[in-house]
Amino acid sequence: MEDLATFLKKKGFVYPSSEIYGGLSGFYDYGHLGTLLKKNFEKLWRKYFLKLGNYYELEACQIMHEKVFKASGHLEHFVDPVISCSKCDFNDRADHFITENTKEKNIEGLKPAEFDKLIKKHNLKCPKCKSYFKPTVMTNMMFPIQLGTSKTSQAYLRPETAQSPYVNFKLQYDILRKKLPLGLAVVGKAFRNEISPRNLTLRQRTFTQAELQIFFNPDNFAVDFDEVKDYKLLVLLVKDRKAGKVKKIACKSLKKDFPEWYLYHLAKIQQFYFDVLQIPEKKFRLFQLSDEEKAFYNKYHFDIEIELDQLGFTEMGGLHYRTDHDLKGHQKVSNQSMEILDENNKKFIPHVLELSFGVDRNVYALLDLNYVDDKKRGNVVLGLPAKLAPVTIGVFPLVKKDEKLVKLACKVYSELNCCYSCIYDESGSVGRRYARADEMGVPYCITIDFDSLKDKAVTIRDRETTKQKRVKIKDLVDEIFKLVTK
Amino acid sequence: MEDLATFLKKKGFVYPSSEIYGGLSGFYDYGHLGTLLKKNFEKLWRKYFLKLGNYYELEACQIMHEKVFKASGHLEHFVDPVISCSKCDFNDRADHFITENTKEKNIEGLKPAEFDKLIKKHNLKCPKCKSYFKPTVMTNMMFPIQLGTSKTSQAYLRPETAQSPYVNFKLQYDILRKKLPLGLAVVGKAFRNEISPRNLTLRQRTFTQAELQIFFNPDNFAVDFDEVKDYKLLVLLVKDRKAGKVKKIACKSLKKDFPEWYLYHLAKIQQFYFDVLQIPEKKFRLFQLSDEEKAFYNKYHFDIEIELDQLGFTEMGGLHYRTDHDLKGHQKVSNQSMEILDENNKKFIPHVLELSFGVDRNVYALLDLNYVDDKKRGNVVLGLPAKLAPVTIGVFPLVKKDEKLVKLACKVYSELNCCYSCIYDESGSVGRRYARADEMGVPYCITIDFDSLKDKAVTIRDRETTKQKRVKIKDLVDEIFKLVTK
Repeated sequence: MEDLATFLKKKGFVYPSSEIYGGLSGFYDYGHLGTLLKKNFEKLWRKYFLKLGNYYELEACQIMHEKVFKASGHLEHFVDPVISCSKCDFNDRADHFITENTKEKNIEGLKPAEFDKLIKKHNLKCPKCKSYFKPTVMTNMMFPIQLGTSKTSQAYLRPETAQSPYVNFKLQYDILRKKLPLGLAVVGKAFRNEISPRNLTLRQRTFTQAELQIFFNPDNFAVDFDEVKDYKLLVLLVKDRKAGKVKKIACKSLKKDFPEWYLYHLAKIQQFYFDVLQIPEKKFRLFQLSDEEKAFYNKYHFDIEIELDQLGFTEMGGLHYRTDHDLKGHQKVSNQSMEILDENNKKFIPHVLELSFGVDRNVYALLDLNYVDDKKRGNVVLGLPAKLAPVTIGVFPLVKKDEKLVKLACKVYSELNCCYSCIYDESGSVGRRYARADEMGVPYCITIDFDSLKDKAVTIRDRETTKQKRVKIKDLVDEIFKLVTK
Repeated sequence: MEDLATFLKKKGFVYPSSEIYGGLSGFYDYGHLGTLLKKNFEKLWRKYFLKLGNYYELEACQIMHEKVFKASGHLEHFVDPVISCSKCDFNDRADHFITENTKEKNIEGLKPAEFDKLIKKHNLKCPKCKSYFKPTVMTNMMFPIQLGTSKTSQAYLRPETAQSPYVNFKLQYDILRKKLPLGLAVVGKAFRNEISPRNLTLRQRTFTQAELQIFFNPDNFAVDFDEVKDYKLLVLLVKDRKAGKVKKIACKSLKKDFPEWYLYHLAKIQQFYFDVLQIPEKKFRLFQLSDEEKAFYNKYHFDIEIELDQLGFTEMGGLHYRTDHDLKGHQKVSNQSMEILDENNKKFIPHVLELSFGVDRNVYALLDLNYVDDKKRGNVVLGLPAKLAPVTIGVFPLVKKDEKLVKLACKVYSELNCCYSCIYDESGSVGRRYARADEMGVPYCITIDFDSLKDKAVTIRDRETTKQKRVKIKDLVDEIFKLVTK
């Protein structure tokens, strides 16, 4: 993980923010390669999920009205147990601190007094100054925002993007001509005042979510189940948890426990990870949460998990059937009806199926899984799929001192640069340039050599196989298109 | 402006945020059409400006270290004069309040005591409760953020994206192989606690900026000046201000007053507005700021202005030569050298040329300029250029009850939907559907009629001319490509 962190900073993928001022715990900046990779992930996510149905994207404010979070329950329940030293400025999450310093397990969700008991039992003291801890305090994790100069208007940075579609639902439902199911997606920032941010971009204080909230009538949510009925999901069900064994189960075999529309979306999510992101099967699982683990309003909840180096299976997102909890809450607090009419003119509050993805986590996983320190080549190879790679094509003139060669290389570069993310590199040996391109994850490198001036052809080198093939310049655009979309 | 606001909400472009809770002053959400339009603007901006040179995009944290804003001067100088009522909760910006309620002009930048004098002179009282005002107070416009639970770590939501590239410069310069000029762009949110937000999305408390910071050696910033030397800029120079007349002046004729690299970028900006955004010439000007108007560190400063309905010429962005002010400030506060070596191994601090654009303002201007209430058609026509239009193509089966017709229409829709933003609409008369599409700014609508089943051709209707032409289905993709890129 440290190797990876060093590599990601060196190549300009991602690194601590405000670093010239010593950094800010839990904040990271994306450099130029990281920004391109992240944007590619977001583009593929949109292209895949928004085309699944009557689904649209919104761009909603990150700062929202206090009452939004009264309705959502965040004001009351979005709290972490915090212990602070009675003398110095040390503080930490009580559950994290206790599990890291004792053999206690599964203590998430305890009450403050219960944490205090454990601290007493294990005689835990401040690791910095050895003083006693003050009693555990439940602390809200939202960042409050004071608007204007009067002290009356209070708002918060949103702790999840989900509330934006909920608050926008009624208006969008009218604008989008009253059709259900209606999906409203947000790809945007969320903010949480984590007490102990950790693991690079996996637990930050500000992060990007890609979330799709599907509003539907629970009596009538038709999906093309036939398409997925024989598709096998890789699930770890609660009942198989002890054995720890992921099972491959066809959607149709899970129909007694879950509705078709839930299984359909589980299948679509898994297909996104396999077909679009090209995650290896054995690194992926859909992890069912138990009744104790999931939020009380989630009727069905699977986490999407990817196995990371050292950290093991880690949450990348989830599929949550939130019932009518959210719109009911907003109806109550706003006094605005969230009801709509079904085809029999019966009023009902739509239910919500949430597809939730942490963008930074997924980007991290893609880097982690595709990072290979190739001893044979003597350099790192970042094996990102071509559609995700920040740079798709490298263009190299064999030498930089030959005017004709450079001119031809520049011509090839500008033609490809219109449609693809390209780099032009003329410094160092071609081998050195291949190595640099490998580290950036460039899937295809094109070299223009002296023969090119005669045969009007160039060499395409494949990052994965290092094999080269000769292609006519006039066929290059078609050839690259074939390679990238294959 | 009110007509436009009503229209923008009705169609789902943009509307007040958190509205079911009464809204939050200065916050707006983009609906599905607004989101697509905004994303298209950002895509075109990136495609155009990042390809101008050795320029890269970063995605940096919106929350930054307090010291960043000590170095930038925001902690000290980013303040507004605020007057508050001595009895009720009314408050406003002193300069705004005074100019709106008296005939005083050009009072921006006065000291608190000078505002108090004007308030006394005109005997101004609270408009809500008629009480006296408290003395004017300079109030910082940044939103502070308290991290963790200890009170020691203070940070701020960034009031401009520019600081992110400055703080990242040294690291990126190393990563990007030590080449100048180096451009670092950020397309992202900025936050300002405006005392009196107004004019829809033109003055919000959170807004999107697209900014490119070009770091360069002032002794050596080569541009292709030949390309623009005869290109005529539409400028309102300080010396022509009284006459109020915009002049068309060739870049080469301004060389005695401005360096080539500054004029080159002015030209490129103007070309972006004319060639990409298709803004009419008479609605555009480059407005030179006087020494009193511009920030002390800006050596050259032109605002980019567009003439809006009712509001007149309004700032959309600017081109700022900020000298070495920014990196010098960060060097001083961070104690990290911002110096690099020139080709003669002489140390220097790079200078910065800033291309700054307000994304929400530009999107607003595009809507304002292209909004036409067409009395003849009886509906609004949103005449957005095809590349900007949120939806590029509408696909309509002539009637929805004919199975074969619908099947063919669906086939056409799915083929085009892979590459373009499309809608499928089968409800109401074709005339009604054209009207709806006009309001959404859809440039091309395709109708599949009974003849289509025989002649394998469809009708393409042009939004601007309402003219229709018949095209073979097999040629449709090529034809649309030609239309969109023309």
